[in-house]
Amino acid sequence: MCDVCGCGDPKLVPVDVHARLLEHNDHGAAHNREHFRRHGLVAINVMGSPGAGKTALLEATARRLGGFRQLTALAGDLATERDAERLRVAGIPSSAITTGQACHLDADMVHRALHHVEWPQADYLFIENVGNLVCPAIYDLGQEANVVALSVTEGEDKPLKYPVMFRHADLVVLTKTDLLPVLDFDWVALKEALVRVMPAPRLIAVSARSGEGMGAWAEWLEARRPSPSQKVQVAS
Amino acid sequence: MCDVCGCGDPKLVPVDVHARLLEHNDHGAAHNREHFRRHGLVAINVMGSPGAGKTALLEATARRLGGFRQLTALAGDLATERDAERLRVAGIPSSAITTGQACHLDADMVHRALHHVEWPQADYLFIENVGNLVCPAIYDLGQEANVVALSVTEGEDKPLKYPVMFRHADLVVLTKTDLLPVLDFDWVALKEALVRVMPAPRLIAVSARSGEGMGAWAEWLEARRPSPSQKVQVAS
Repeated sequence: MCDVCGCGDPKLVPVDVHARLLEHNDHGAAHNREHFRRHGLVAINVMGSPGAGKTALLEATARRLGGFRQLTALAGDLATERDAERLRVAGIPSSAITTGQACHLDADMVHRALHHVEWPQADYLFIENVGNLVCPAIYDLGQEANVVALSVTEGEDKPLKYPVMFRHADLVVLTKTDLLPVLDFDWVALKEALVRVMPAPRLIAVSARSGEGMGAWAEWLEARRPSPSQKVQVAS
Repeated sequence: MCDVCGCGDPKLVPVDVHARLLEHNDHGAAHNREHFRRHGLVAINVMGSPGAGKTALLEATARRLGGFRQLTALAGDLATERDAERLRVAGIPSSAITTGQACHLDADMVHRALHHVEWPQADYLFIENVGNLVCPAIYDLGQEANVVALSVTEGEDKPLKYPVMFRHADLVVLTKTDLLPVLDFDWVALKEALVRVMPAPRLIAVSARSGEGMGAWAEWLEARRPSPSQKVQVAS
């Protein structure tokens, strides 16, 4: 079993190893969060399955918000820098975090990667996590909010089958809605699943391709921004 | 970092913990494999992202092969028994492995679950792993072959971005091909990615919905079966 992903088998993995790992991570995440808040930066941890459309969502976000907000991103993947490259082409200064065999980002990886992007000037830092609907959920990175991208082709039952991820989500962005006409998608089943799993269910449906729903997503992001008074307060 | 998924940070996780886990698992997998071979059973480890269409592939396999082969299955998920229920409805005697927070199956979980299905009489045992394109790859379950289900909506670059999974794959089944007419799918990019990552690249494209490609998949499965002489040899 996988101790670090939250399922330590006490026969094989000493409990203190697991506790030490998460404690170390929480310490790093608190440090990142302090940095972000001091600079009035909104950090968003974007999670989801491989191919859920995380990068496409951020590309479309650049088209929507890039004209009046400063965006920056870190893109996590086991191998290749493809996502960071795509985001740079879309106009988001980005750095890749190549994890090797690691199935999720942690606070240290994020901290080290911050040296490669001009984050203090940015309004938003998008941290695109490794595509994985399990392990990233329990690693705090110092983000302001957790967003889970779920594509319409993945199935309405995913919140019930991967409850840890959806329990930690502040928002679910349902992606690829342009494919709905060719699918038998059950909205009621998805909403019932989210209500059962999320502490405060919130769903925005978007198509990065057509731009549908991107306004609601941009509004949600803007509502996460600190008011000017809060910024001064934190910085003083 | 995640020691058990193959990315141990030696600062935090003692190397011997990781080694002990994998060694314990390999021992269990060898034991499972011996069982399967003695009974002339072909065990297939079916992996892929959440929503890649693993269960739908097995439902379609039941329609194709269920009339003349005895199929059985174990279905791994963090929560719910939905996949096992779907497979039973499709005519495959199945048992659920509910992993809680664990991001992959291991050999012990499979061994324990075998007590709940009549596997010795079966021709095939499908082990549907937890939906995850990272962690399940390094855990041997005692299977005859690893199959990775990749849906056409996930993107042609997945083999490059999740190389560990595809390096361990004996076959990639490209699923949901009925959606190809509404996608900009790049076959050349997918094939080039597979050639770069898989030791012996093999791809079968299927639609569980239309049945397209299911014949090639059934042939591939049948070619995994031991010849009668091999069965006798192993059993004697």
